[in-house]
Amino acid sequence: MRSFFIQDATLDLETLKLPEEESKHACKVLRMQEGHQLSIVNGKGDELIAEIIDANNKACEVKKVSFKHTPPDNFQIHIAIAPTKMNDRFEWFLEKATELGIHRITPLLCSNSERKKVKLERYQKVIVSAMKQSKRLYLPHLDNLTSLDNFIKSNPIGVLAHCYEGEKNVLSDSLKKKNCPILIGPEGDFTNLEVEKLIQSGYQPITLGETRLRTETAGIYACAISKFLFE
Amino acid sequence: MRSFFIQDATLDLETLKLPEEESKHACKVLRMQEGHQLSIVNGKGDELIAEIIDANNKACEVKKVSFKHTPPDNFQIHIAIAPTKMNDRFEWFLEKATELGIHRITPLLCSNSERKKVKLERYQKVIVSAMKQSKRLYLPHLDNLTSLDNFIKSNPIGVLAHCYEGEKNVLSDSLKKKNCPILIGPEGDFTNLEVEKLIQSGYQPITLGETRLRTETAGIYACAISKFLFE
Repeated sequence: MRSFFIQDATLDLETLKLPEEESKHACKVLRMQEGHQLSIVNGKGDELIAEIIDANNKACEVKKVSFKHTPPDNFQIHIAIAPTKMNDRFEWFLEKATELGIHRITPLLCSNSERKKVKLERYQKVIVSAMKQSKRLYLPHLDNLTSLDNFIKSNPIGVLAHCYEGEKNVLSDSLKKKNCPILIGPEGDFTNLEVEKLIQSGYQPITLGETRLRTETAGIYACAISKFLFE
Repeated sequence: MRSFFIQDATLDLETLKLPEEESKHACKVLRMQEGHQLSIVNGKGDELIAEIIDANNKACEVKKVSFKHTPPDNFQIHIAIAPTKMNDRFEWFLEKATELGIHRITPLLCSNSERKKVKLERYQKVIVSAMKQSKRLYLPHLDNLTSLDNFIKSNPIGVLAHCYEGEKNVLSDSLKKKNCPILIGPEGDFTNLEVEKLIQSGYQPITLGETRLRTETAGIYACAISKFLFE
């Protein structure tokens, strides 16, 4: 069944009109007609299964077939990650992390960041699309680009993947606190100063294993292991 | 340090000439000169650190600085996966799986496969590039495109990710046998008949969690969890 997204909308209604863009997509692009069924989600756990009663290109009207609210996960996967130089690699991370159940993504600005500007609107579209495709009911939260210093202020404790030598924990031990953010550095890694700051604040260094992972692969790996451990 | 790859070559030598393509890359593209150091790997666990003694564009000669053989992992991650309709999604899988330490990849031909031809030479290049980039010392083995029936004949036991309802094991229980292949179906999933055949042969159905994963995401997820459990 086709899935449509109306962010934060109230969906437990007897009838509902789709916004213009979604109406166009349903009735013009997909040629859906009266009697066809669709799923509408709001990214907050609600899903309305509905039937089209007026296949209008600008305001498609539907009536309720069934409604369900699914409660949120009892854990949070939050990854703060420096966007990669190549934009498609970062978009790939957003898509895969959304499929794998991430809850919050913070694009991080570090000393060695190769990308200092991000396309939030475009990123949001990638996330919405992956959410619909994977049938997730909650939209991951995407933060604005945040400097490492500001991030530490609001998130003084977490885990930190970096490539320098030194004592590190394995991921599973460090992730026991289910709601702490996982930090993934830029292509040139965090600087020594940044690592020091993070550890002083309360971050635990972790290892992601033997091989050297690209930034976006490290992000996906951390997300996959979190899903595996918590779900 | 720059890494160069000479498949299956004997590397524990006092001096060595790089093949033409690698010589050109080192001396012409990267402008490396006499005295510069480089790493040469053969995909079989050997690594020669060497110094250029003749920066020749066609046959760059190097002398040994140090040599090391690293033994192979004591487990095998083998994923048999139907190549995706969009080729770039499959190449992403190859790159990420190589970074994450996969040992063997079998492109699988199933009833619902959208892609019935594969570009093995191109895939091999993606794998070699990811191997060098991630500093892995073993080249993952890439099989030819293999029909599901032929695959079952040579691999009668394994685990199987599919999207139908029914009793399934969680990944960690099924992966206890460290060398069994993990099967990931095509975009339209395995057919009922294929699932039956696999289960009769000795495959265990597994679940990859709550959300619906794309083929390539399922492959990466299975690879990440295997790495996490075995490494």
